[in-house]
Amino acid sequence: MRDVAIIGCGMTKFGRLEGKGLMELLVEASLKAIDDGGAGDRDFDAVYVANFAAGELTHQTGIASSLVDQLSLLPAAADRVENGPASGGSAIKNGFLAVASGAHDLVLVVGGEKMTHVDTDIITDIVATLSQPETEYVHGVTLPSLVAMFTRLYMQHHGVTERHLAMVAVKNHANALKNPYAHLQKAVTIEGVMNSVMIADPLRLYHCCPISDGGASVVLCPADEAKNYSDAPVRIAGFGQATDTHAVHERENPTVLKAVQLASKRAFEMAKLMPGDINVAELHDAFVILEIAQSEDAGFFRKGEGAKALEEGKTALDGELPINPSGGLKARGHPIGATGVAQVVELVWQLRGESGKRQVKGAEHAYCCNFGGFGNNVVAHILERM
Amino acid sequence: MRDVAIIGCGMTKFGRLEGKGLMELLVEASLKAIDDGGAGDRDFDAVYVANFAAGELTHQTGIASSLVDQLSLLPAAADRVENGPASGGSAIKNGFLAVASGAHDLVLVVGGEKMTHVDTDIITDIVATLSQPETEYVHGVTLPSLVAMFTRLYMQHHGVTERHLAMVAVKNHANALKNPYAHLQKAVTIEGVMNSVMIADPLRLYHCCPISDGGASVVLCPADEAKNYSDAPVRIAGFGQATDTHAVHERENPTVLKAVQLASKRAFEMAKLMPGDINVAELHDAFVILEIAQSEDAGFFRKGEGAKALEEGKTALDGELPINPSGGLKARGHPIGATGVAQVVELVWQLRGESGKRQVKGAEHAYCCNFGGFGNNVVAHILERM
Repeated sequence: MRDVAIIGCGMTKFGRLEGKGLMELLVEASLKAIDDGGAGDRDFDAVYVANFAAGELTHQTGIASSLVDQLSLLPAAADRVENGPASGGSAIKNGFLAVASGAHDLVLVVGGEKMTHVDTDIITDIVATLSQPETEYVHGVTLPSLVAMFTRLYMQHHGVTERHLAMVAVKNHANALKNPYAHLQKAVTIEGVMNSVMIADPLRLYHCCPISDGGASVVLCPADEAKNYSDAPVRIAGFGQATDTHAVHERENPTVLKAVQLASKRAFEMAKLMPGDINVAELHDAFVILEIAQSEDAGFFRKGEGAKALEEGKTALDGELPINPSGGLKARGHPIGATGVAQVVELVWQLRGESGKRQVKGAEHAYCCNFGGFGNNVVAHILERM
Repeated sequence: MRDVAIIGCGMTKFGRLEGKGLMELLVEASLKAIDDGGAGDRDFDAVYVANFAAGELTHQTGIASSLVDQLSLLPAAADRVENGPASGGSAIKNGFLAVASGAHDLVLVVGGEKMTHVDTDIITDIVATLSQPETEYVHGVTLPSLVAMFTRLYMQHHGVTERHLAMVAVKNHANALKNPYAHLQKAVTIEGVMNSVMIADPLRLYHCCPISDGGASVVLCPADEAKNYSDAPVRIAGFGQATDTHAVHERENPTVLKAVQLASKRAFEMAKLMPGDINVAELHDAFVILEIAQSEDAGFFRKGEGAKALEEGKTALDGELPINPSGGLKARGHPIGATGVAQVVELVWQLRGESGKRQVKGAEHAYCCNFGGFGNNVVAHILERM
C-alpha cells in the first residue's frame, strides 16, 4: 500500500451563502485546493464528491459527473460518496484508497452542501431520515431529540453539567472568532448559552450547530511525489472506519460511542501512534455533548473525564490537546457533505502552521473524527507533518 | 496493486416487487452473494452500497450504515456510492480499490433501487435531474427526450433503421425469457416493437427499459485467497472509468460516446486484452440505441457497423459476441443502483457456466459497460475465469 499525502487544500467560507448554489460551492473549494496544491496544469485521475442530499435539497443528481466537467477535469473518473454527516470522511478514505492502491496518482476530494435555502423543518426531516425508519423515525425521532436523550443520559452517568455543555460552546465560538471561514463569528457566554432557547430538553439552541452552506476540498497524491507539488505536504498516516447499531436503543450502553472507539483504534494502529501523540484534534460537535463524548471514546481522556478536561482548559487553544480550533461544527458550521473534508483542511493548515490567530503551536500529529447518523458510521483520520 | 477476485454473487428477481422495500432488496441480494461465496461465517471489512436515489424515492438516507447493521456485519466500514445509473459500476470499482490497496480483505458490494411504488412522472423527473440543470433540465429535457434526439441523429449518421432498433428489443426480450431473474418475461416481435406506443419520436415504448425494483451483489477478496472460498472465482482483470461533457450538445460529435471509448480503452489496457478477446458482454441498453452505440464505442465493432453486426446475428446468444444474454436493462430491468452490479453478476454466472438456457458456451473473458447520466460518466469492467 502506497503512502498518501495531501498536497493542497481549500474551502469556501461557511455560512448562509445566498446566491451561491451547490455546484458553485464545490467549484470554489476545488479550485482553491487545486491551486494550493500547485496542480492547476495537471491531469487528475479521479474526483470524489462528498455530499449528503443534493437530490433532496437542490434537485440535482450525478453531481460528481457534473463537477468534473465544470472544473474542466474531463475525463477524470468521478464518484459521489454519501455516508450521512460522515460523507466527507468517507470520500477522503476512498480517495486515499485509490491512491494507496496504485491505481491513481492525482485525486481531488471535495465535499459540499447547500442547505440554507430550504426551510428548517424540511432540513430537520431529511436529517431525521438517517434514523432507524421502523423504530425511531416512525415515532417522530429527529436528530436533536435523539441527542437530547443522549445528553440527559450522559449527564446522569458521567457527571456532565449544563455548565460543561455551555463551556464547549463558549470555547468553540471563541475559536471560530479567529477563523475567517467560520459561519458563526460571535462570542457567547456561559450564561448566554445556559439561557438560550430550549430545543429538546436539556438541549438548547447554543448546544447545536447551525445549518450552513459550504464546500471544502483536498488534493491527494502518492507521498513520494508530494514534494514535487508542495513544500509542506501532510501525510495521511492512518484511517479507521466503523459502524454501530442503527437504532441507538439497541446499544448495550448508549453513552458509549463504540464506532468512535473502533474507528480511532484502527486509525491509531495504522498510524503506529497513540492518542497522547496527537497535538490537535477536530471532533464532530454537531451537538456539544458529542465533543465531550468523542474526546473520551477517541482515546484522549478516560470515559467520564472529558468534561473535567474541558473544565481544566486542556482542550482550549492553549491547552495540552486543543479540540476544534476551527470552531468545530458548532461555530464553523455544518454543511453536511463538507464537514469531514473541512476537518481535514483545518488540520492541514494547523500542521503547516497557517492557521493564523487560532494556530496550535508546533503541531505535528493531528486527528479528526467524522460522525455519521447518530454514531452508527464513524470515520477517523490521523495526519502528520512530512 | 493486489489482484482482486469475485468469490460470490447473487441477485433478487427484478420486477415490480410489491411489498419489498429497498432495504429488503439489498439484504436479500447481499445474503445470496455472501452465501454463494461461502463467507457466511467471516468478518467483512467493508460494504459498498450502490444506490441512485434512496432519499428521494424511499425517504431514507445513510442506507449503507443501515444495511451493515441489518446484515449483522457490524462494525464493517460502510459507504454509499452514487453515480447515477453507473452507481453499480462505481461501487464495484471502489470495492476493487479497497481490496487492491491491501487495506481490506473481504468486501461486499451491493446495489439496489426501489422504484415501482412511485409515480412514473416523479421517476422521470428524478432521473431528469441527471441532465445539465441550466441548459437541459430547465428546458424540459428528460432522459427519453434526450435519447430520442440521439437516436434520430444516430439513424441519420450511421444508417440505423427502425427495424434495427426493434431487433435489439426482440433479441433482449428473447434472452430475458431464459433468465428467471428478468423483469419482462415475454417475447416481442419486430412488428410489435415497431408499432408500440411512441414515447418521444422516434423512441417507442419497446425501445425503453422498464422501471424496476431489484438488488444485486458480489463479494470481493484478494485473488490469491479466492480459492479458499470458491471453486470458481472470477478475476476482475481491468476497470476503466471516464467522464464526458455534462450537456450533450457540447460534444464535438454527439453520436460518439467518448466516455465509453475511454473507459473501455483503460479497462482493456489494464487487463492486457483486446475487444476481440471478449466472449460475452453486458451493455447498458436503457434505450436500445445505446446497445448499438456502445457495441461500437467499446471497440467490438467499427463505428457505424453495430447495427449490421446485430442484423447478422453476431450479438445473438449463439453469435460470435453475445451481448446482453441476461436480457439487458431492456428486459431484465433497470433498478438504477442495482444495474451495474447485476451486469457483473450475470457475467460471473456466464464465466462459471451457470447461466442455464442462456449460457454462452466456453466464455473465458467478459466485458460490461455501465453508463451514467447520458454517457457523461461510464464505468467498464473486464472479468476473466481464474
